[in-house]
Amino acid sequence: MPRLGEVGEREVLKRLIGAAVERPTVALGPGDDAAVLRPAPGMDLVATTDAFVEGRHWLPDWIAPAELGARLAAANLSDLAAMAATPRWALISIAARAEHEVDALVALERGLDQALGVEGAAVVGGNLAAIEGPECLTLALLGEVARGRAWTRGGARPGDLIAVTGRPGRAGAGAALAGTLGERARDPAWRPLLDAWLRPRARVAWAQALAESGAVTAAIDLSDGVLGDLAQVCEASGVGAEIAAQAGTDDPALAAAAAALKREAFDLWAGPSDDYELLLAVDGAGRAAFESAAEAAGAEPRFVGRFTGSRGAIVRLDASGKSRALEGAGYDHFRQGER
Amino acid sequence: MPRLGEVGEREVLKRLIGAAVERPTVALGPGDDAAVLRPAPGMDLVATTDAFVEGRHWLPDWIAPAELGARLAAANLSDLAAMAATPRWALISIAARAEHEVDALVALERGLDQALGVEGAAVVGGNLAAIEGPECLTLALLGEVARGRAWTRGGARPGDLIAVTGRPGRAGAGAALAGTLGERARDPAWRPLLDAWLRPRARVAWAQALAESGAVTAAIDLSDGVLGDLAQVCEASGVGAEIAAQAGTDDPALAAAAAALKREAFDLWAGPSDDYELLLAVDGAGRAAFESAAEAAGAEPRFVGRFTGSRGAIVRLDASGKSRALEGAGYDHFRQGER
Repeated sequence: MPRLGEVGEREVLKRLIGAAVERPTVALGPGDDAAVLRPAPGMDLVATTDAFVEGRHWLPDWIAPAELGARLAAANLSDLAAMAATPRWALISIAARAEHEVDALVALERGLDQALGVEGAAVVGGNLAAIEGPECLTLALLGEVARGRAWTRGGARPGDLIAVTGRPGRAGAGAALAGTLGERARDPAWRPLLDAWLRPRARVAWAQALAESGAVTAAIDLSDGVLGDLAQVCEASGVGAEIAAQAGTDDPALAAAAAALKREAFDLWAGPSDDYELLLAVDGAGRAAFESAAEAAGAEPRFVGRFTGSRGAIVRLDASGKSRALEGAGYDHFRQGER
Repeated sequence: MPRLGEVGEREVLKRLIGAAVERPTVALGPGDDAAVLRPAPGMDLVATTDAFVEGRHWLPDWIAPAELGARLAAANLSDLAAMAATPRWALISIAARAEHEVDALVALERGLDQALGVEGAAVVGGNLAAIEGPECLTLALLGEVARGRAWTRGGARPGDLIAVTGRPGRAGAGAALAGTLGERARDPAWRPLLDAWLRPRARVAWAQALAESGAVTAAIDLSDGVLGDLAQVCEASGVGAEIAAQAGTDDPALAAAAAALKREAFDLWAGPSDDYELLLAVDGAGRAAFESAAEAAGAEPRFVGRFTGSRGAIVRLDASGKSRALEGAGYDHFRQGER
């Protein structure tokens, strides 16, 4: 198996992203000093970047190269989903060790490519550099949205409902199971949680469908965890939030993980977890339109609470309707160890 | 001095790029899931990414944080210059150790910001992640160019002249002096070479001025070195190149470095060096227009040879007009050690 150091940076980069990109939105693909792209007239451009560091954002024993590429795509696609944007163009920057097998890097890039392609985006350029230490993968992703129609974190109003897609907390639970149970976490019983951690799917199509309803007032993608990301929306919107009593307690997979990890299911649901699902603020008056758009798209968002006028305060209701303050802390790589 | 690990990823990111960007081309700056940008109607979008790895692309003993930020900007700005594009928006992704001083990171970002700002671009988003090992800085830079008017590497024709801006080879010579002479390379006599290595300025404005002349048929930025980058243009254009006898021998600073390093001045000029200057193919019929545009812009390009029909062959003429084949090898991080 040839390795990067034997083949050389330029040649490997060519193998990774040397192919021409045949799309009307790409005038010039990889291989020049920069890519030349053709945005549609009258659209806003939406741009994000997200990076993965080996040992922190991924553990090589747990994820295959192609899955890793797809997960990096998901992390970035998810940011564009949270803006209700259509992904179009990506730039990949890889810092890899010289002893990295070329085939493994190619597999990573193919996984990235495929995950982007499913959502309509393509890699149009990239960079490859040698590093002696943990590897680092950085994607920059560009997309389009009708002018002035991008969702932001800042539009939630008191009274708006809080909706989440999918099953938040499962990714963090999967990572915690791997950390705690080790090889036993590979038991098929944990598969839904491991899949959420290792094989997430960004909610690009759902976001576009839900945007059509006109009922979404604010959005964020769940990359830190429900509480951490909800706190971001509250801060940006100048509101508070109240989480319903039953929220986060109705996922059997999460309940099983909580028992195995000796944790509370709610804490797994609310705490650090990069699920790449969406958390949305929904105008109560538009709830029917929102639900019908969700149903048509095959999305099954859950309503888990509502925004309040208590700026910055995030509380959880109990069964009797009393509220308890929650601390809105998501995952911070510098302050916590590997999950 | 507080360190990243004490302050936390999110808070530091906010300090680095938390400020709103007040420009008509930026509808939403840092702080949301993605930035929202407003390209000008009818323009092509030009996108590049370039990354620096600690110990390889920079040596902390030799470059201050603000200079490092500016140099990362230059590496990416230079790619856009080579497309004759106008830089607009940047995304910065930083993988830093937890013990990195926050003030140093802020200085790095300010240096980046300022270098981008001089050319009309702004940081509109970013990412910060912890790494335990060499640090990694990745910039993605976007710009605009009139539709269909981007320079590429692929347009050089036999007979076109080869022009280079500035003093290629000085950056590589500066790095080589630091590696060979150590502290003695800080002698003021070596300043022009150290400056070329550590404080390059991308040729964005020159590129735009030269593009106006209509005489440039192909372009590349000098990030690998004259020979390596010339070989890229030859490959993309399906041509060969002939380097004039006197080319690369008329730079006194390079000659002094060659003596100190016991190397040939021509080899320093032609070999691995990231000067972020431009190498251009110029239509001979447009030479007068090219030179007058250069003079008006304050650029002093040098003509160093011409493209030929001998596909892939790069030769150097000697004083008697005989030609000798050169091997077109630029810098490859995987195949060579630190310069």
